Amino acid sequence: MAREGAKDYGTVRQEHTEAWEARWEKADVVITGDSAAQQGIRYNIFQLFSTYYGEDSRLNVGPKGFTGEKYGGATYWDTEAFILPMYLALTSEEVPRNLLKYRYNQLAEAKMNAQKIGLPGALYPMVTFTGIECHNEWEITFEEIHRNGTMAYAIYNYVNYTGDTKYLAEYGLEVLIEISRFWAGRVHLSERLDRYMIHGVTGPNEYENNVNNNWFTNYLAVWTLSYTLQQLEDEDFARFGITEDEVRVWRDIVKRMYFPYDEKWQIFVQHDTFLDKELRPADTLRETDLPLNQNWSWDKILRSCFIKQADVLQGIYYFGDNFDFDTKQRNFEFYEPLTVHESSLSPSVHAVLASELGKEEKAVEMYERTARLDLDNYNNDTDDGLHITSMAGSWLSIVQGFAGMRVRAGKLHFDPFLPKGWTEYAFKINFRKSLIQVSVKDEETVLTLLDGAPLVVKVYGEERQLDQAQVFSK
Amino acid sequence: MAREGAKDYGTVRQEHTEAWEARWEKADVVITGDSAAQQGIRYNIFQLFSTYYGEDSRLNVGPKGFTGEKYGGATYWDTEAFILPMYLALTSEEVPRNLLKYRYNQLAEAKMNAQKIGLPGALYPMVTFTGIECHNEWEITFEEIHRNGTMAYAIYNYVNYTGDTKYLAEYGLEVLIEISRFWAGRVHLSERLDRYMIHGVTGPNEYENNVNNNWFTNYLAVWTLSYTLQQLEDEDFARFGITEDEVRVWRDIVKRMYFPYDEKWQIFVQHDTFLDKELRPADTLRETDLPLNQNWSWDKILRSCFIKQADVLQGIYYFGDNFDFDTKQRNFEFYEPLTVHESSLSPSVHAVLASELGKEEKAVEMYERTARLDLDNYNNDTDDGLHITSMAGSWLSIVQGFAGMRVRAGKLHFDPFLPKGWTEYAFKINFRKSLIQVSVKDEETVLTLLDGAPLVVKVYGEERQLDQAQVFSK
Repeated sequence: MAREGAKDYGTVRQEHTEAWEARWEKADVVITGDSAAQQGIRYNIFQLFSTYYGEDSRLNVGPKGFTGEKYGGATYWDTEAFILPMYLALTSEEVPRNLLKYRYNQLAEAKMNAQKIGLPGALYPMVTFTGIECHNEWEITFEEIHRNGTMAYAIYNYVNYTGDTKYLAEYGLEVLIEISRFWAGRVHLSERLDRYMIHGVTGPNEYENNVNNNWFTNYLAVWTLSYTLQQLEDEDFARFGITEDEVRVWRDIVKRMYFPYDEKWQIFVQHDTFLDKELRPADTLRETDLPLNQNWSWDKILRSCFIKQADVLQGIYYFGDNFDFDTKQRNFEFYEPLTVHESSLSPSVHAVLASELGKEEKAVEMYERTARLDLDNYNNDTDDGLHITSMAGSWLSIVQGFAGMRVRAGKLHFDPFLPKGWTEYAFKINFRKSLIQVSVKDEETVLTLLDGAPLVVKVYGEERQLDQAQVFSK
Repeated sequence: MAREGAKDYGTVRQEHTEAWEARWEKADVVITGDSAAQQGIRYNIFQLFSTYYGEDSRLNVGPKGFTGEKYGGATYWDTEAFILPMYLALTSEEVPRNLLKYRYNQLAEAKMNAQKIGLPGALYPMVTFTGIECHNEWEITFEEIHRNGTMAYAIYNYVNYTGDTKYLAEYGLEVLIEISRFWAGRVHLSERLDRYMIHGVTGPNEYENNVNNNWFTNYLAVWTLSYTLQQLEDEDFARFGITEDEVRVWRDIVKRMYFPYDEKWQIFVQHDTFLDKELRPADTLRETDLPLNQNWSWDKILRSCFIKQADVLQGIYYFGDNFDFDTKQRNFEFYEPLTVHESSLSPSVHAVLASELGKEEKAVEMYERTARLDLDNYNNDTDDGLHITSMAGSWLSIVQGFAGMRVRAGKLHFDPFLPKGWTEYAFKINFRKSLIQVSVKDEETVLTLLDGAPLVVKVYGEERQLDQAQVFSK
């Protein structure tokens, strides 16, 4: 007997079907000509949206969603680094805003995390439910502090995509200031080089740890300070109790941070002593060595040159407009061959950068690895559960990678290519108050305004007003 | 009712008393003029000899002996690094030989330890009962590999003191060879500098870890290879299956190992990036910071310049004759002020070096710290149990420190001073087949042959034949 007032099965089923149809209508990516690629992206979108659809800012996404006990359902930086951009494009603005508010609501706890290790400001947790750090290994908890910069980056990412500067004033700035305070307390001035340094960190490449001057972490720290300084209005100083002295120190760090750089290779160096390692490409590894984390002793992994997830490339991905093509190319060509992609978060970043650099084959290889990671059990670990958070990476590989979507100064850019063997691919995105569809064929890309106000877009470097549909030729 | 054949209480007590009198007769250090110093050294000798007197090569000494559960009664490198020299001087040759045989008997297990992390040769365990590694933290188990070199050093130390080269041929060489094989597998060639390096180690200074090119570890590795090569006779190649290729590699490593050195300070650098830290002396720490390990977060300790136990000075202590006075002085004066001595093994090494460098006040301060560590609970941790293994350090501070005992080319050397406030101190030592007494006053030192054959000794740089007694003036 049904509870009084309860909906009957048919109604519930109907509502469920309609809700999923609405999600799917907007989110589906249609690939023609490659059913394995098509299956991969649909599988991933379905799994991710079954896990989280952003209705409640008290909730977040565990790396395994509800499919396995690994990571215990807790929240990781995966959310800000990988998932957020997908929700920005595929759901209403409220969903990514709720993801940001999740962190805003935990600011007091983040301040406690910093205080507990004797530092000022806020340190967002590596792993959490309530905002209090829940991880138990020092080399991760205390040292993977790039997650803190990523919280700041997510705010920038959200504001850049949505144009919602009100969020910045109401919530974002407070978070940025406390993260900046953390960085200012965490650096030290090395007298020998008269440069600020950050010692004792573990970057996204967890196959090294406790390193000094991880380029990505140093870059994120400086970027956070710089971005925060840019956002400060006169009245904020009194509002947040920022002293002149504080601002002076932040500016000084921005000016005098140390970044490891190699003149010979002309690359950013992953951390101080990385280039002293025995360097050899990952394709010289034997099949029985892989995955390294199931075959090698931990110390051997740590002192090898093989990269779980390439820090420097993550930084170049985050801040792509800050580097020229040659710089990106040199760094990609140096780090990609050393990367074993044993983090599920790794291939999508390489797919995006490879696309931008015209390395189409590599981009597609990376897409396949992220899109079919669980379907094909690439890393021999799907029995731990699905890689829910990195599933967003397959969407990023297509949209930011193959289609080259960027948002620059409030304007959408695309620079698409069609992967070999595909006939066409198409997807829809929200952008501010508009909904558009992007269809990519070999020689042309069609953008169609499906809903909302006309907007200016730039495709293959050509800028046009998009009212209904526009055909761009390559 | 007593068991049949059991000794009665009176007999047992009598035997016990006589056994202790015999130990004590040889081991006692008599200090006149400073009852706190006298109490310290007697307390330590009694506790150490109550724990272990070397009758059984299956047994060893846990860092807390039987006085506390910390360290679980397992064996550490403390035995080889600190205790062995004291037993060499105060017991029959069989006792230190049993300590070496303990490791010889565990060679098969040490080879398994190396094999398990994919390396050749033998890796003696950080912590053990059976020879199999029992420690559970990667940064210690996999990385504190200086203990392996210390096993080799102990063999040298024993042979140098006793002249028992037969032990080398029968047992020692096999251990040396397997340790050498480990080092040869553990180094890598850094192409950039064309030098061998050892990455990813934790030195005796556990307030840093996973560092590259720890000077002490690199030095020990090269020393082990070099000492092993020296000991090899022609027939050993077949006996131990040593190939020419192996020897070539060992020689190459000896020739081309990288040692971090700073031109400005003219010091050996603890590890690659140590001098990039914020450097300030430990006396700038507030009282509420100390001990650091009870007051600071682990990451803060790791990136600070403060040293638990100074690696470089440990190396200079081991291989004192390889360095000139100025080199020792420069390194001591650089590292001593940064050292917080939160390892109980630390002060004795500083006491010995400070004595040699004529820094008498510092030497006495360090002696007091090691001799009265538990009596005065210096490190606020005596409730964990007594620091049994480091108790040997107070004896070392007096005998190798204040009295300056060294063994060079089979000959005993002394270079004594009398600590301020003391009237006299006297101790006895075995040396090969002789027993001698050393009495030190301010202006003179008396050596007396108590038993055995006459021998040549060198005191204050003056060499004499010791038959009965000799008075040396400062």
